[in-house]
Amino acid sequence: MNYTIRPAREADMADVLRLIHELAVFEKEPEAVEVTLEQLLADGFGESPKYSCLVGSHNGVIAGMALFYPRYSTWKGPVIHLEDLIVTESARGTGLGSALLTEVIRHAAGLGAKRVSWEVLDWNDPAIAFYEGRGAHVMREWNVVHLDKKGIAAYLKDYAGI
Amino acid sequence: MNYTIRPAREADMADVLRLIHELAVFEKEPEAVEVTLEQLLADGFGESPKYSCLVGSHNGVIAGMALFYPRYSTWKGPVIHLEDLIVTESARGTGLGSALLTEVIRHAAGLGAKRVSWEVLDWNDPAIAFYEGRGAHVMREWNVVHLDKKGIAAYLKDYAGI
Repeated sequence: MNYTIRPAREADMADVLRLIHELAVFEKEPEAVEVTLEQLLADGFGESPKYSCLVGSHNGVIAGMALFYPRYSTWKGPVIHLEDLIVTESARGTGLGSALLTEVIRHAAGLGAKRVSWEVLDWNDPAIAFYEGRGAHVMREWNVVHLDKKGIAAYLKDYAGI
Repeated sequence: MNYTIRPAREADMADVLRLIHELAVFEKEPEAVEVTLEQLLADGFGESPKYSCLVGSHNGVIAGMALFYPRYSTWKGPVIHLEDLIVTESARGTGLGSALLTEVIRHAAGLGAKRVSWEVLDWNDPAIAFYEGRGAHVMREWNVVHLDKKGIAAYLKDYAGI
């Protein structure tokens, strides 16, 4: 199947948000998506976009997306982080996910990034096999830590007198 | 002990790089630090800084740092990522690390960030206990994935014909 991969336009973001919701269901956290279409548009298409997004479409229908942005490694310097790579269920196994990843890595290389990073659930064996097959290292001893909005407020109340 | 915590100035960055090296030794990867003082200065103090940095000093001597930057969550919107929080060995246990973390979280709250994230080694029990005691969630099922510079080049050669 042939897909077109191109930078997302504002008109694509409703489809992108649909894919974000689909992934949240797959990751067993359907209630966790707080971002709105308005916020995605404001954050991605202003003067200082907070992210870059590619979409993959077939016959004009968007079936996948990749969203990424710069990070900064104190070891390597500027790097690229792939926040989400999502392919809608009906299009899995068609090569679209692979094509999106390739475009992200090509883009990162063009920017001179010393690394592309992302995160994976440790029970997502097909994804891990795919990434490792492509030369990525799953850093199993590194865990992600989150202090959420409620935690931020509680922290500041307890430790900063706010 | 009383520390002063303030935004890093250009003149502090040699000390910041010293702390980065010290952490790399602790994390058993002393050879991994490729970033130079020149790059830290260019990336952090230009018109579009790629990171923010706080330093903690006592009697004018820098004993700790915290380096952070914005990220973008497709579930929450703009968030803050704490890349490194380092306290020099002789100053551990003095409360400086805690004070630096508090300042980062205060800063993130001021920006309206919906989350502060960071990464921790799963064998670093004292750090994990500290973070969890402060209300953070260690997402043990989420692993970090890296495609390094060599991996980027190999990937593009194999899959993108570059």
